[in-house]
Amino acid sequence: MKGRTLIFKNQPRIFATATVAGPKEGAGPVGKHIDTIVEDDYFGEKTFEKAERKMMEGAIRQVMQNAKYTESEVGAIIAGDLLNQIISSSYACRSFNIPFLGIYNACSTMSEAFIIGGMLVDGGYCESALCATGSHFSSAERQYRYPLELGNTRPPQSQWTVTGAGAAILAMQGKGPKLVAATLGRVVDYGITDTNNMGAAMAPAAADTLCEHFLNSYFSPKDYDLVITGDLGAFGSRLFKDLMWEKGFDISERHVDCGEMIYNIAEDEFQGGSGAGCSAVVFNGYFYKKLCKKEYKRIILIATGALLSSVSSQQGETIPSIAHAVVFES
Amino acid sequence: MKGRTLIFKNQPRIFATATVAGPKEGAGPVGKHIDTIVEDDYFGEKTFEKAERKMMEGAIRQVMQNAKYTESEVGAIIAGDLLNQIISSSYACRSFNIPFLGIYNACSTMSEAFIIGGMLVDGGYCESALCATGSHFSSAERQYRYPLELGNTRPPQSQWTVTGAGAAILAMQGKGPKLVAATLGRVVDYGITDTNNMGAAMAPAAADTLCEHFLNSYFSPKDYDLVITGDLGAFGSRLFKDLMWEKGFDISERHVDCGEMIYNIAEDEFQGGSGAGCSAVVFNGYFYKKLCKKEYKRIILIATGALLSSVSSQQGETIPSIAHAVVFES
Repeated sequence: MKGRTLIFKNQPRIFATATVAGPKEGAGPVGKHIDTIVEDDYFGEKTFEKAERKMMEGAIRQVMQNAKYTESEVGAIIAGDLLNQIISSSYACRSFNIPFLGIYNACSTMSEAFIIGGMLVDGGYCESALCATGSHFSSAERQYRYPLELGNTRPPQSQWTVTGAGAAILAMQGKGPKLVAATLGRVVDYGITDTNNMGAAMAPAAADTLCEHFLNSYFSPKDYDLVITGDLGAFGSRLFKDLMWEKGFDISERHVDCGEMIYNIAEDEFQGGSGAGCSAVVFNGYFYKKLCKKEYKRIILIATGALLSSVSSQQGETIPSIAHAVVFES
Repeated sequence: MKGRTLIFKNQPRIFATATVAGPKEGAGPVGKHIDTIVEDDYFGEKTFEKAERKMMEGAIRQVMQNAKYTESEVGAIIAGDLLNQIISSSYACRSFNIPFLGIYNACSTMSEAFIIGGMLVDGGYCESALCATGSHFSSAERQYRYPLELGNTRPPQSQWTVTGAGAAILAMQGKGPKLVAATLGRVVDYGITDTNNMGAAMAPAAADTLCEHFLNSYFSPKDYDLVITGDLGAFGSRLFKDLMWEKGFDISERHVDCGEMIYNIAEDEFQGGSGAGCSAVVFNGYFYKKLCKKEYKRIILIATGALLSSVSSQQGETIPSIAHAVVFES
């Protein structure tokens, strides 16, 4: 380890991925790269929470099918989500006879899962690790903000929580993208209190981690085909690029944000998508396929998370954030 | 890995620990092994949630002092707690310039932290890892059950969430207990729905993990000086021993439960303590010191967690549980 950057010497590969998403995500620009598009937000269940769990369960089941793995061939599931006590992940894992490590770093959970799963495989502890996260617009709205039935107006700086789940299996086999390094995030707080402006809260965390990564690795922006953030949204992405510019790194030509990519701009999601499912669906759907086709040589995925709860906001707290980065090479 | 059991070849050691707890825990049988006993449940803060965070922050700060470590010498903090979005851990880590990996497996979080921290150090990714968890009676009651102000009567099968936090630093130095192996838990659900009877929900998970451990390691109960569970409580402990007996393993002479140890039986906590802070305080306080003195040669710690949320209960769900086990040798 140098600074906060770890090296995966054995370079485990993404052997397979799977994605499940809702109708709005399916109709967006990356829709055709999503494995399963669900036709209604309830997914045949009685509550949004149960629908969210069913999507996560579906992604886990699908990735095992795509990899042709049985349950006994998966060393562990590393999963998390945005619901209180990560019930989508816990209840989804009840259906599988596979060890479960629950994690939570808000919308940075996908890259956190890749880091822990990467260590499990790279360190020789397991043959394979299954990384999964997800989120659901309707369950997130009523938990973090207001129930949809209230019909509240959404402010222009708000983002739209992605209804979807994504899963990936890391293993020492196949020809998929190699996980080569990771830079761990620390908690960063710039004093933002607007719970509708997650992009502003998270951009400093992304910049902090990416600067640390460049300093530790002696790499610079031009060594990466893409710098991919998870869900900064349009405004947060601009802030992120500005913060990087101030620190002497110009990433403007190679930065993309999963949140900015997932929806058609004409709709009412304003700044784009967010949620643990956002990077899970866009990375494991779209970018994984591009990496497999070797359209990119090296990318860095920086999923960002806002670490608030409705209780912390009500008690007057600011919104601390975190960003974990993982580097994949094709 | 054999089955669900991992081996830590380099055997990282617990280099230092620290514990913080409330007045009720301080007055109990393990009180004299707790580093800092807080005199009131608010710990000088305005809310129980902020008090819980302050305890976690205190345990993290104290363990670094005990180890004589600066922030730059800690590779990562692996922490979790019971509050929604693990805010105690996230906000506590805001005070430290150290990477943070948030985890959640309910009251099994302490052993999960040892597993992930163990991989970080054993695998050579970091020089050291700081593992921490905590809980608070009053914040847990109002989040999971009823606010204290309602004055609800507690049923006899209920447990008392421990107000406390514990932290440990794993590193390749010192003479502390060595982390030699771990058995990962899977999600087990025996259909319990009574949210006041966590012991019954969690006992099957503990038995599942311990049986798996014996089968994978060719060890038997007599190879362990102690089989320590996290917070099954009195009733759950009896169930656990019965379940193990049914599977052919007699652990009755060497089983102890942190939840049964932490309070004086005469009080109104009925089945004993529970919460992520329970095993954190008792293990990192009492058992760590006993291991350092070589009073035990080999112990297995099985912290158990009930993976429900108040939403899952309201939606008619049963209570799935998990138990991760870690083996320490002195």
